[in-house]
Amino acid sequence: MTENRQLSRYGTVLIVSGPSGVGKSTVCAAVREQFPKLHFSVSCTTRDPRPGEIDGEHYYFINKTVFEQKIAAGEFIEHADVFGNYYGTLHSEVLKYISQGEDVFLDIDIQGAMQIKEHTGSDELLKRCCEFIFIIPPDRNELESRLRGRNTEDEAVIQRRLAKSEHELSFWREYDYIIVNDTLEAAVERMKHIIYAAHCRTGRYREI
Amino acid sequence: MTENRQLSRYGTVLIVSGPSGVGKSTVCAAVREQFPKLHFSVSCTTRDPRPGEIDGEHYYFINKTVFEQKIAAGEFIEHADVFGNYYGTLHSEVLKYISQGEDVFLDIDIQGAMQIKEHTGSDELLKRCCEFIFIIPPDRNELESRLRGRNTEDEAVIQRRLAKSEHELSFWREYDYIIVNDTLEAAVERMKHIIYAAHCRTGRYREI
Repeated sequence: MTENRQLSRYGTVLIVSGPSGVGKSTVCAAVREQFPKLHFSVSCTTRDPRPGEIDGEHYYFINKTVFEQKIAAGEFIEHADVFGNYYGTLHSEVLKYISQGEDVFLDIDIQGAMQIKEHTGSDELLKRCCEFIFIIPPDRNELESRLRGRNTEDEAVIQRRLAKSEHELSFWREYDYIIVNDTLEAAVERMKHIIYAAHCRTGRYREI
Repeated sequence: MTENRQLSRYGTVLIVSGPSGVGKSTVCAAVREQFPKLHFSVSCTTRDPRPGEIDGEHYYFINKTVFEQKIAAGEFIEHADVFGNYYGTLHSEVLKYISQGEDVFLDIDIQGAMQIKEHTGSDELLKRCCEFIFIIPPDRNELESRLRGRNTEDEAVIQRRLAKSEHELSFWREYDYIIVNDTLEAAVERMKHIIYAAHCRTGRYREI
């Protein structure tokens, strides 16, 4: 920018969550299709690969001992034990992209996002590069009809899911951005603006 | 968003500065043309209207006593004395737009932007709604050629302007966003993404 100092840019870590039934998977799939340059973070897991799943593409399949060594070494920015299997995101997985100025997308549950947020407290680079995005339904009725629409379970199950979604919704303030999922097209458009605006965030820049 | 709680959105205060010679006026003029819904903040001044200037459109023309009363009453979010004339932005001028969910654009010098930033320390609503945007040249040579190109003054004057611009450039870290003005079209496109992404910033939302 001056004769001796130029600005260089880090990539962005896009951390995307939302309550159950909000349609997050559909939005994320559309983003994946429309942003071929965007990297999608690959998680580690200790569960066995399912037919057709490829190591390094769908997951990094590692064994429990190795996973626990990596936990102990602080290599995960988030991890969880889900019914006896570990799942987690490696710090190195996001770092390899952002250090090259490339963006990486994490489709992740709220607990995972909150772990990453906590991690940014002691990780200056990650703090500078993360954008936390929360997808919300346009209104409660829409969420309820989506939860009802996707299965034919009994009322008690649906009510439990609704209560869970409402609890999850209360986390919206913890995020940097809210995307209202009124239509898929509008939600993806909002994501697009957030991704491109993120390229202009001052935190992404450093003098070299 | 839930049965009893809905989200309502404030507008955004877009505060745009840049070093001398960066082409800020051209970018702002293009934004004004391409975003007819965006409000452009009208400043107060104590100087006399020039031919063709309309009160309430180009400036609010007020006398010195009234201006000083407003300073004393804390009604300005920024103000300055420029060669014996006051210029300033009223808090009410931005509040009337953002409280209705509409965006307001301030084309303002760095000193003014820094005053507003200081003001946000004690003004929670303003803090939630401001986005500070800094326009930078693609490189030093480009800035120099722009400073040289717009007049035929002698080398000493040009060197003084260059030194001033470089000092101004050092303020980039104080802003939320950086827009590189490599081409007018790209700069306006970046502004567009920032404006639309700002509509999704969590700080803009409140439960009603």
